[in-house]
Amino acid sequence: MQQYEIAVLPGDGIGNEVMPEALRVLDVIGAKHGVRFDRRHFDWSCETYRTTGRMMPEDGLDRLRDHHSILLGAVGYPGVPDHISLWGLLIPIRRVFDQYVNLRPVRLLPGVTAPVRDKQPGDIDFWVVRENTEGEYSKLGGRQNEGTDRETVLQTASFTRFGTDRIMRYAFDLARRLGTPHVTSATKSNGIYYSMPFWDERFAEIAQEYPEVRVDQDHIDILCARFVMTPERFDVVVASNLFGDILSDLGPGVTGTIGVAPSGNINPEGRYPSTFEPVHGSAPDIAGKGIANPIGQIWSVGMMLDHLGLTEAGADVMAAIEQVLGDPAAPRTPDLGGTATTEDLGKAIAEAI
Amino acid sequence: MQQYEIAVLPGDGIGNEVMPEALRVLDVIGAKHGVRFDRRHFDWSCETYRTTGRMMPEDGLDRLRDHHSILLGAVGYPGVPDHISLWGLLIPIRRVFDQYVNLRPVRLLPGVTAPVRDKQPGDIDFWVVRENTEGEYSKLGGRQNEGTDRETVLQTASFTRFGTDRIMRYAFDLARRLGTPHVTSATKSNGIYYSMPFWDERFAEIAQEYPEVRVDQDHIDILCARFVMTPERFDVVVASNLFGDILSDLGPGVTGTIGVAPSGNINPEGRYPSTFEPVHGSAPDIAGKGIANPIGQIWSVGMMLDHLGLTEAGADVMAAIEQVLGDPAAPRTPDLGGTATTEDLGKAIAEAI
Ligand SMILES: CC(C)[C@H](C(=O)O)[C@@H](O)C(=O)O
Ligand SMILES: CC(C)[C@H](C(=O)O)[C@@H](O)C(=O)O
Repeated sequence: MQQYEIAVLPGDGIGNEVMPEALRVLDVIGAKHGVRFDRRHFDWSCETYRTTGRMMPEDGLDRLRDHHSILLGAVGYPGVPDHISLWGLLIPIRRVFDQYVNLRPVRLLPGVTAPVRDKQPGDIDFWVVRENTEGEYSKLGGRQNEGTDRETVLQTASFTRFGTDRIMRYAFDLARRLGTPHVTSATKSNGIYYSMPFWDERFAEIAQEYPEVRVDQDHIDILCARFVMTPERFDVVVASNLFGDILSDLGPGVTGTIGVAPSGNINPEGRYPSTFEPVHGSAPDIAGKGIANPIGQIWSVGMMLDHLGLTEAGADVMAAIEQVLGDPAAPRTPDLGGTATTEDLGKAIAEAI
Repeated sequence: MQQYEIAVLPGDGIGNEVMPEALRVLDVIGAKHGVRFDRRHFDWSCETYRTTGRMMPEDGLDRLRDHHSILLGAVGYPGVPDHISLWGLLIPIRRVFDQYVNLRPVRLLPGVTAPVRDKQPGDIDFWVVRENTEGEYSKLGGRQNEGTDRETVLQTASFTRFGTDRIMRYAFDLARRLGTPHVTSATKSNGIYYSMPFWDERFAEIAQEYPEVRVDQDHIDILCARFVMTPERFDVVVASNLFGDILSDLGPGVTGTIGVAPSGNINPEGRYPSTFEPVHGSAPDIAGKGIANPIGQIWSVGMMLDHLGLTEAGADVMAAIEQVLGDPAAPRTPDLGGTATTEDLGKAIAEAI
């Protein structure tokens, strides 16, 4: 029997409510496909920070290292500044485990009302490939003359050829693999003087390795506008850490799927575990009510299965999500216009598998 | 008779086609309100760059300095890298003339089809206030090990207390002046380690000077999604240079007004001329055909009149634009679904005044 070790970190807020539903689905999948998923639970969170002053123990990363994958809920909670909670848990995991790809689907789903008009499921279906370990997210910088009128803060983004080339190759390979040979690069070389012209150069260079892939590029400002105006024109969009962050929230915003979209933080070579987590956050406003939509967490399980090579199992999860969403009689959480609980919806999806 | 000196820079591409229509409107306004607008024409553009190696003459900024305002078309054209054309003309004007506010309306207009569903004119009506002289747009940085596998590019954003405080005060003052006491701050303090937590601190501090103004803040990723999902909730949004750039294109994307939105690059103290320009670019794909929509340039004239204190004249321009857009029998350029020329539409607006 195939066997996988999965580290489970529900994190904060609704992370604790949606994770059990994801694990329910994982159990069903395991039984159906004859695969064993051994789970180890870690309760690291803002709560941990409040009691220990750290988001995770000092040897936290070592304790995660030997798992095949990490399933993460949501990190961050009022009372702990975001830059502490994130740089104390989420971001170190991404970086130390060299999860240099952040992959997120933008997909119009049956039964989900999108804010944009006149689009059908199938019209919008693409991937944002975000660089996940360098770029604009950095601790390079600092403050001078703190607390005075002359206070100045510097924040340095760093782009390496190594880091830029590999994320671009991932995007091109993905476009090839999916049979949608078209990659769009998110740039801002008209305004950001050093890093973005470099980004464009690398894109042009890497594109030559994939002569059959059609390429285009848009400055991030107009690209965001095009996500709303003509989302059907995209297939794979490759972007820096910050631009990818923006695009991979905006995309699900356009399709009405912010509450249900997943993401993978992927180390493609499999040298380290990859992390799968919903796009949504810990949602303090509804935490504790048992009404959070678990689909983002469940869909993250689907992406994890794909990554582990369990493609049929991954497809089963996706099919079950689409079936339940498309069925007007199935339970719906309040964000989808219904009155079902997190558990109702989780069970419905598990049963559909 | 009141008299204003206006520097006119049509720039590249369709800038040359829409500018005459804006000046036509300015003539009509001048006649109606008994104001004289003396215009000086400057043909600085990518064409200038190709012949002289510079986007503008060495004393270019000095030649602009003594005008009340600058009316700009569009800068940038294929063959001249964007970072050259922009940093050679647009960006130095913004900076040397301390136009530290970039102001752009996001407004659903009658007769314009928006990509978002179920919204009426009036539902979406807010302003993006963008910092325009510092932040992420900088020439601080450089490359190391160029051309090798170890190539690294650094790009440093700089935020000063001086620059941050004044843009925030402008946003709060604007909210007060418009009678919409609500300001939203665009941040990313969960990911961008130094600059954005500083931005949040300054926002909290300046907000205390305006106790009657309601404040909120969103990380740029979810904020972009909210521009699409709930655009009606915004009144004044204050943002850094890069985030403001993104939001002020995305907003008009949501309302279907990318082709018609204006912007002001404003030195609020009036020590230097302010620049007014459409949001759209030089549009090489349709340049030379005489079919560009001149409304962005004309609306920019409206913003300029407001800035000069000619409030009634500014309102006349806006009313004429709305009247023509709302009239199904009026001429419409192809981007609005019609077959009219740039000139047809310009004349219709001039006549409506
Ligand atoms: C052309 C470019 C440098 C400019 C900017 O990013 O500022 C443009 O997008 C704008 O918003 O005026
Ligand atoms: C929480 C935050 C640091 C994070 C990011 O910006 O990477 C989140 O927005 C995401 O996209 O996973």
